[in-house]
Amino acid sequence: MESFEQSLVAVGRQMNEELDRLLPLSDGPERRLQEAMRYSSLDGGKRLRPFLVLQSAGLFNCTQVGSLRVAAAIEMVHCYSLVHDDLPAMDDDDLRRGRPTAHKAFDEATAILSGDALLTKAFEVLAGVETHSDPQVRSDLVMELALASGDRGMVGGQMFDLMAGELEMDVPAVTRMQQLKTGRLISFAVESGGVLGKAAPQQRLALKAYAHDLGLAFQIADDILDVEGDEATVGKGVGKDADAGKATFVSLLGLERAKTQADMLWRQAVKHLDVFDERADLLRQAAQFVVERKA
Amino acid sequence: MESFEQSLVAVGRQMNEELDRLLPLSDGPERRLQEAMRYSSLDGGKRLRPFLVLQSAGLFNCTQVGSLRVAAAIEMVHCYSLVHDDLPAMDDDDLRRGRPTAHKAFDEATAILSGDALLTKAFEVLAGVETHSDPQVRSDLVMELALASGDRGMVGGQMFDLMAGELEMDVPAVTRMQQLKTGRLISFAVESGGVLGKAAPQQRLALKAYAHDLGLAFQIADDILDVEGDEATVGKGVGKDADAGKATFVSLLGLERAKTQADMLWRQAVKHLDVFDERADLLRQAAQFVVERKA
Repeated sequence: MESFEQSLVAVGRQMNEELDRLLPLSDGPERRLQEAMRYSSLDGGKRLRPFLVLQSAGLFNCTQVGSLRVAAAIEMVHCYSLVHDDLPAMDDDDLRRGRPTAHKAFDEATAILSGDALLTKAFEVLAGVETHSDPQVRSDLVMELALASGDRGMVGGQMFDLMAGELEMDVPAVTRMQQLKTGRLISFAVESGGVLGKAAPQQRLALKAYAHDLGLAFQIADDILDVEGDEATVGKGVGKDADAGKATFVSLLGLERAKTQADMLWRQAVKHLDVFDERADLLRQAAQFVVERKA
Repeated sequence: MESFEQSLVAVGRQMNEELDRLLPLSDGPERRLQEAMRYSSLDGGKRLRPFLVLQSAGLFNCTQVGSLRVAAAIEMVHCYSLVHDDLPAMDDDDLRRGRPTAHKAFDEATAILSGDALLTKAFEVLAGVETHSDPQVRSDLVMELALASGDRGMVGGQMFDLMAGELEMDVPAVTRMQQLKTGRLISFAVESGGVLGKAAPQQRLALKAYAHDLGLAFQIADDILDVEGDEATVGKGVGKDADAGKATFVSLLGLERAKTQADMLWRQAVKHLDVFDERADLLRQAAQFVVERKA
């Protein structure tokens, strides 16, 4: 059987090829914009969301062409959110994945516009007939991505995060904030396979439950990495949350309880996959990986 | 017969009601984001794009529910582009429609995020089953909006505009830049009625040709207003292009030739509507209006 690590490497390669295909360069002055779109999406990140899409789509024998496109669309949304998040008016980060952030490599205006264009492109990709022959499926994918990433999803979570300094942040509040900010998009990545494959309601519920626990485990692990991680490995500044006095799972629960919680969550996530056969094995491994990763 | 001015007022009222419905407020901290989304989209602008959607949809007896949603989606995209365009890193404008711009009324981070969320919401609205019962139509609308507003459309045009200072801008270059920056979205507004109404190819071509000339006439008129307009009426700073030494239709053609060109274009736009009956009369009036407006 293919190992999880091998699979993640393969997904990274496939994703670069797909994004390269989907983000061609024009000859006109808008080329600079497209170069920035490529800069922020090609060759970067763990590609966890694409992995989740491809694996969940694999449960239902979806075509590779369609699931790669959905994976690319979700990754574009993830990457645009990082570009905007890194802006001086937001987190003001200079480093991302060990490279200058988009507004450093280009300029602020180009970074803002390239984020906008990546977000727009994601919907173009989902609506394309190559994604699925049934327009109802394409329309559903568009709807679910919009809900996961809009004001009641990812962008709402970013606003929540920006306001957190003025709020009483307890564990339920941090959980809800992270659920919006990262959980919803991770959930959509997992659930998109069920949409593409027209899965039965019971299978969709299983994926939803898995995604929920996985997303939360992922975020707790992120907070642990911010405390314990090594800057060179993580590829971005660490210890920033503590320096900023931000409420995190670690600051609220303590390091040990946060670790116990993350451990409990990935095991629970795996249990939800009991309705699937061995084709879900890499998803089972992924749950452990998100907690035990070093970056 | 309803006059064009009456119709535009009615569209403005309908649009506010529709946007109010589509942009409800949450109770959580993401409420601030939603307030910014509403601030930048409710009660503002001429609502020319919504007018064009409703009129073109009216040619094919589309349902009011569906065409109002498409109109709102396009207006959300238009409004998000203004919010991002006004940012300090872009045009750095303090005033829009006679009110503080979003980053002045809120802050820069909230303005960036509210633009992102408006763009996302537009696709959610198009994909909603209330927009059209046929998912193929919804998927087509998503695709067309994405193409009109992405890196090969509106956002590409904004990038082009930002680079213009370093380029040799002659009339074909300014035409292409404006075609991307404003023309593509105006075209989609006009053509969306044909998508919603499953218009015949010949009708779609007529709308496309009308939209092309209308969009260009609109932009030339905008350049004329920047020279001749009154700041209080226009609701934003005027004379900015000349001050910035920007190439415009007026700077390249001179004021008189620009006016002749705009006049020729709106008359040509009207001619393309010959395939339609009197139901296209308000679209005919609109072509004249975009050239002769004072704001």
